Amino acid sequence: MNDNHEFLSAADALLGSRGFTQDADLMEPWLTDWRGRFTGKALGLASPASTQEVSELVKLCAQHDIPIVPQGGNSGMSGGATPDTSGTAIILSLRRMNAITRFDEDAKEVTCEAGVILQTLHEMAESKNLRFPLSLGGKGSATIGGLVSTNAGGTQVLRHGSMGAQVLGLQAVLADGSIFDSLTPLKKDNRGFDLKQVLIGSEGTLGIVTAATLKLIPALADRAVLWAGVASILDARKLLLHADNLAGDALEGFEVLPKHSLDAVLDYAPQSRSPLQGEHEWHCLIELTADASTADRLQDLATKLLESAFEEGLVEDATIAANETQAADFWAIREDISPAERAIGPAVQHDISVPVSKMAQFVSEAVPQVEAQFPGTVGVAFGHLGDGNVHYHVLAPKGAERGVWERKEGKKISSFVYNLVTEWGGSISAEHGIGQLKIDELAQLADPVALKMMRSIKRALDPQERLNPGKLVWLADKV
Amino acid sequence: MNDNHEFLSAADALLGSRGFTQDADLMEPWLTDWRGRFTGKALGLASPASTQEVSELVKLCAQHDIPIVPQGGNSGMSGGATPDTSGTAIILSLRRMNAITRFDEDAKEVTCEAGVILQTLHEMAESKNLRFPLSLGGKGSATIGGLVSTNAGGTQVLRHGSMGAQVLGLQAVLADGSIFDSLTPLKKDNRGFDLKQVLIGSEGTLGIVTAATLKLIPALADRAVLWAGVASILDARKLLLHADNLAGDALEGFEVLPKHSLDAVLDYAPQSRSPLQGEHEWHCLIELTADASTADRLQDLATKLLESAFEEGLVEDATIAANETQAADFWAIREDISPAERAIGPAVQHDISVPVSKMAQFVSEAVPQVEAQFPGTVGVAFGHLGDGNVHYHVLAPKGAERGVWERKEGKKISSFVYNLVTEWGGSISAEHGIGQLKIDELAQLADPVALKMMRSIKRALDPQERLNPGKLVWLADKV
Repeated sequence: MNDNHEFLSAADALLGSRGFTQDADLMEPWLTDWRGRFTGKALGLASPASTQEVSELVKLCAQHDIPIVPQGGNSGMSGGATPDTSGTAIILSLRRMNAITRFDEDAKEVTCEAGVILQTLHEMAESKNLRFPLSLGGKGSATIGGLVSTNAGGTQVLRHGSMGAQVLGLQAVLADGSIFDSLTPLKKDNRGFDLKQVLIGSEGTLGIVTAATLKLIPALADRAVLWAGVASILDARKLLLHADNLAGDALEGFEVLPKHSLDAVLDYAPQSRSPLQGEHEWHCLIELTADASTADRLQDLATKLLESAFEEGLVEDATIAANETQAADFWAIREDISPAERAIGPAVQHDISVPVSKMAQFVSEAVPQVEAQFPGTVGVAFGHLGDGNVHYHVLAPKGAERGVWERKEGKKISSFVYNLVTEWGGSISAEHGIGQLKIDELAQLADPVALKMMRSIKRALDPQERLNPGKLVWLADKV
Repeated sequence: MNDNHEFLSAADALLGSRGFTQDADLMEPWLTDWRGRFTGKALGLASPASTQEVSELVKLCAQHDIPIVPQGGNSGMSGGATPDTSGTAIILSLRRMNAITRFDEDAKEVTCEAGVILQTLHEMAESKNLRFPLSLGGKGSATIGGLVSTNAGGTQVLRHGSMGAQVLGLQAVLADGSIFDSLTPLKKDNRGFDLKQVLIGSEGTLGIVTAATLKLIPALADRAVLWAGVASILDARKLLLHADNLAGDALEGFEVLPKHSLDAVLDYAPQSRSPLQGEHEWHCLIELTADASTADRLQDLATKLLESAFEEGLVEDATIAANETQAADFWAIREDISPAERAIGPAVQHDISVPVSKMAQFVSEAVPQVEAQFPGTVGVAFGHLGDGNVHYHVLAPKGAERGVWERKEGKKISSFVYNLVTEWGGSISAEHGIGQLKIDELAQLADPVALKMMRSIKRALDPQERLNPGKLVWLADKV
C-alpha cells in the first residue's frame, strides 16, 4: 500500500491531472469491454501525452511492480484491453496521443500516434485523394495502436491483408520502459529478426505500441458491388475462384451468408430489402474496386463477371448494384448480420479460420456435426470466404434463457467448435485475437511447440509479466 | 574428442552414408561461400532426408553440444551458411530435402521442402500456368529454405514483396530438436505472436527451416519493358512516382543505373548495346506486367506511360522493348552491372537501403561525400529505386592492388558508408542479410534497444547458441 502511494504520487507528478486519475467516474467506462463480457478494476487510469511520457510511466511501473493494461478505443472483441478484477493494474490509455505526425504524399505514407482513430485516418487519407484500405465496424472508436496490437482484419483483407500488412514502421515502449523506434519506413531491411512483426498482434503483451507508419493507396475511383444467389457454399467457393481468376487484383471483397442470415437481417432491419427476387440457400457479396489507373475497365469487368458466372452455371441469380446507394444497401445487409442474429435469441459466436481452400468444405461438413451434437441448435456460418475466415454463430434452441444458456451449454459448444477447427488445421481466432476470452483455449489447443515458443519470447521481453498480464499467454501453465 | 566420436557414430547411424560424411573432398565445396570471402572447417556434413531426421540430428547435437550451420544452396551473400574455422560445427545441408510435397491449383499454393531450388519452383509453377514472383541471380542454386531464412529480395519486391511476403506456412526445427509446424496456410490467424515471422529472415539462428508453403500468382500473360534516360536520379524518382500513379499494380520493377554502370556493361559484355542513342546521366529500367485478367490493356498502358513521360518532360529519351528478345537484352544490362563493375578493378560493395522517398536524395548527396572523403574513388549506385534499395559500389583509385585495397582502404570506406546510411535512417543490409559479413557492424550500428531485443529472443530460443553461431547476432557483446 505504501508502495502504491509512492507510485501514485509519482505517476501524478509525471502526468499531471489530465494524464493520471483515480476518479471512479472517469475510470468507469474503461473498466468494461464494449461487448460487456468482462469488467475489471484498476488502480488508476493513465493517459500520457507522448511516447516519452509512456516510457517514463512504464519505468515507474517497473520500479513499483505495477502491471499495465494498454488500451486504445476499447473496442476489442476478446477483452484484451480490460484489466482483471484485482485492481492492482493501471490502464494505460493511448487515446490522448492522437496526432498524425507525418504525411508524405508522394511516398503515400502516414505516421500516426497510437491514439489516432481509424475513421480520422480514413478522412485524412480521403482528403489527400488517397485511401487506407482497412476498415471495420468499430472504426469510429478503434485506434491505430489497438488495430496494430491486435492485427485487426475486416472485409478488405482478401485484397490488402490485415493491419500488420499496412505497417511500414513501428514505435513501441518495452517492458523496461525503453523505446523501440522503427518508425522510419524501409521497404527492404534485412538486419536480423523482424522485430516489428514480433510486436504486431502481440496484444500489448510484449510492448506498448505508441506510433506506426502506415502505407496508403490511391483513392477509390470506382467500385462495383455484386450480389449473387448460389445453391451451396461449395458453389460460392467456385464463384470465388472464378472471380479471382477473372478480376485479379480488382477483387477486394468476397463475403458469404446463408439464407438464415439474410432472413434474419430482413426481419431485423425494417428498411432492408433482399437484393434478389427468389430464394437461395447461399448468398455472395462481391466487391470489385479500381483506382484512377484501372477505373476505365471496372464496370465492364463487373458485367463480364456477372455474365460469365451465369454462362458457366455458377449462380442461380445475380445482380450488380445499380448505384452507390444500392451498393451501400448490399453492404448494410452484411453489416447487420451480427446484430440480427443476436436479436433472435441466445447464441455463441466464433471467429475461426481454416485454410481458404477448405472453408467451403468445413462449413458444409462441420456445421451439421455441431447441430447433431447439440440438438435444437442452429449453426450459422457467414463471413470472409476469400480469407477462410468464418464467423460461426450457434443459436440456442428455442426457449433457452439468455445469459444462462451461453455460460452453460454455450461454453460446451464453443469447446466442441474449437476442437473441430483445430482438427481441420484451423485457427480458434482468425481476427479477433486471444485477449482474456480465449487464453485458456489457446493454452489447451495450441501446438505445444508454438506455445513454448510464445512463452519463451514473452519471458524474454517481459519476464515480470508486467505488460497486459492474463492476456494471450501465461508464462506458467495455469490451465 | 571422445564425445565427438560418440556423436559421429550416432550421426552416422542415424543418417547413413548418404546422410552423413566426414570425407574432405565431399565437404570441400561447402566450406567456402560462393563469393570466396569466407572459408571454414566442419566436423562433418549432414544431409538428412526428412524433417524427422533433421529433428533427430538436432537433438543429437544438443546432447553432444555440437554447433550446427544450416546450409541451402550456399549462394548467400554474407557468409551466413559458412562454418567458422574451429571445425567444431557440422554443416546441416537441406539439399536432399527437395520435394514439392503439395500443390493446390485452385488455392494457388505450393508446399516445398527446404531444399527445393528456386528455378525448379519457377518451372513447376509455369507448367501449371502460374508464377512464383521472386527471382534473383542465384536461382539455379538458391533453395527455398535459404531464401526464407534470409528473407531474400530481388527485382520484383516493388510489386510483390520480399520472400517473407510469399510465405503462407512454415515448418522449422528448433534448437531443442522440436518441430514447429505451421505449414497449413491460414490467411487470417490471430492466435498470438506471429512465430513464422520470427523465423523468416533469422538466418538459421532461431530455427532450421525445413519446409514452406508459398503462394503463387497467375502466370505472366504479357510484359512491357521500358528504358528511359533521365538527367538525374531526382528525375528518376519523379518518373517512378509518375509510373506508380499511372500503372498502379501493373508496375512490377523499377531499376536505376548511372551512366558509369551502363558504360561498364557496354565494355564488359561484347554483345550488349545501349538501348538509347544519346548519352544520359541516369537510366531507368521499368517493367510493367499483366496476367490474363489485365493483359488486354498492358501495351496501351506502356505507350501511355512513355508518351506522358515525354509530355511532362520527365525523360530525356525513352523506348519500349520491341519484343521479348529486346526486353531480355534490357534486363541483361541490369544483371551484368555487378560483374562489369567488378571487372574494372578492386571495389567494395554495399547493399543498403534508405526510405524509398529519400533514396534519390541520398544518392545525390551522400555519394559525393564518399568520393570527397576518399579521393580517387568512384561511387556507383544502382539498383531498386522503387524499394529504396541501393547497391552501392565504391571503386578503388586507379592502380590499387586487388585483394589488398579491399581489406585496408575498402574496410574504412564501408565503415564510412554504413555510418552514413545509419545517419539517414537506413539499413546496412537491405536484402543480403547480416551473416558473418556484417555481424560486427550490426552490433555497432544497430539501435541498442533493437539489438537487446534480438539478443533476448535469440537467448530465449537458442540459449546455448547452437544454431548458426557467429552469424547475425552474438549473445555477448564481443565487439
